[in-house]
Amino acid sequence: MTARRVTVVENILNANDQVAVLNRSRLDEAGVLSINLMASPGAGKTSFILQTIRALAPRLRIGVVEGDTAPVTIDADKVIAAGMPAVQINTGGDCHLDAVMLKNGLEQMPLDGLDLLIVENVGNLVCPAAFKLGTHLNILVASIPEGDDKPYKYPAIYRGLDVLIINKTDLLPYVPFNMSYFQQGVELLNPGVVTFPVSCRTGEGIQAWADWLLHKSEEMKK
Amino acid sequence: MTARRVTVVENILNANDQVAVLNRSRLDEAGVLSINLMASPGAGKTSFILQTIRALAPRLRIGVVEGDTAPVTIDADKVIAAGMPAVQINTGGDCHLDAVMLKNGLEQMPLDGLDLLIVENVGNLVCPAAFKLGTHLNILVASIPEGDDKPYKYPAIYRGLDVLIINKTDLLPYVPFNMSYFQQGVELLNPGVVTFPVSCRTGEGIQAWADWLLHKSEEMKK
Repeated sequence: MTARRVTVVENILNANDQVAVLNRSRLDEAGVLSINLMASPGAGKTSFILQTIRALAPRLRIGVVEGDTAPVTIDADKVIAAGMPAVQINTGGDCHLDAVMLKNGLEQMPLDGLDLLIVENVGNLVCPAAFKLGTHLNILVASIPEGDDKPYKYPAIYRGLDVLIINKTDLLPYVPFNMSYFQQGVELLNPGVVTFPVSCRTGEGIQAWADWLLHKSEEMKK
Repeated sequence: MTARRVTVVENILNANDQVAVLNRSRLDEAGVLSINLMASPGAGKTSFILQTIRALAPRLRIGVVEGDTAPVTIDADKVIAAGMPAVQINTGGDCHLDAVMLKNGLEQMPLDGLDLLIVENVGNLVCPAAFKLGTHLNILVASIPEGDDKPYKYPAIYRGLDVLIINKTDLLPYVPFNMSYFQQGVELLNPGVVTFPVSCRTGEGIQAWADWLLHKSEEMKK
């Protein structure tokens, strides 16, 4: 009896990952590089997406899936105003997106016309780390005014990253932030992770990130 | 059969609230005013607690329960260094505290020697809203660099507040933040909520908050 219960639990845990595999196949077939963009509330995910669109729009067609806990279209509206397709997913209060939510989002997205898909996860440093979506890259937007101790306090989300964006560098003169303490924590959890310091307000650092991403997108099409 | 399943589900939902009621009784008996302090990561909860201790330490004895998703004692160490008792709760990756975790925390806290207990919840704008702890006051620390759209995006956490702290007002000259748009969202969800704009960095606004809290604590002892 016990063995049977364990099996059931395993199936439940794997259900999300199975759908994530389907999402990945779908994105691979369409040749769309995809990003799971995570951050705490207000770290600047949407501003970062808009800066990325601005830097790459002539060369890449970018779609955005917006995850929100409430039925507000504030972020999706900004993406559409920037001339790119956006799909809004309301998690109904849940603290993260999961693979099934993204699957539903992908069905409404014109994948064949896209080069890049950015999935803006719910603003949260805890829950999104536990749910694979099937995207190619896990990217976290950290933010200077959040403070330098976040890798130590929220290690799970730092461990699985492919890229770390350090946003709001323009605020460095105005807040206490020990960059070497921050980076020591990051290095402990995720040695050698690709990192881009940026300011989405001034645009500083965006070009280096955009060049890297363009290169990744071109690699995908080979 | 269906009716029985519904009953079971209701019992599970109420288990947390039942323990919350026990926590409240315990705090009431000890005459300890208690706060459930919530915020997103890096909004300044710990700095706010330290400023509150600094402002009230000669008059109130303050204990702190620190909720973290990882076994780090960064915040608890700061409270102890400020001369007050602190208990650390590691949620083991969970995105919020619950009433049972607080019950365990209260058992390690010298309640009879305290006037005020501050429970620092996990940094998160989604999960903590769903779990009553049994504390007297729900307080949210919002933060200027998070942006002015947070009430619209995370409405659940704003709805149940007794007090709203708007922290990092010293950054207002350096970031885009429309205060009337922010306050319009707050007013929609929680009309007339008691609000204190503060800067935990400069200390501005802390005295007004400390006076209010001292008055609340004195009311409790009557």
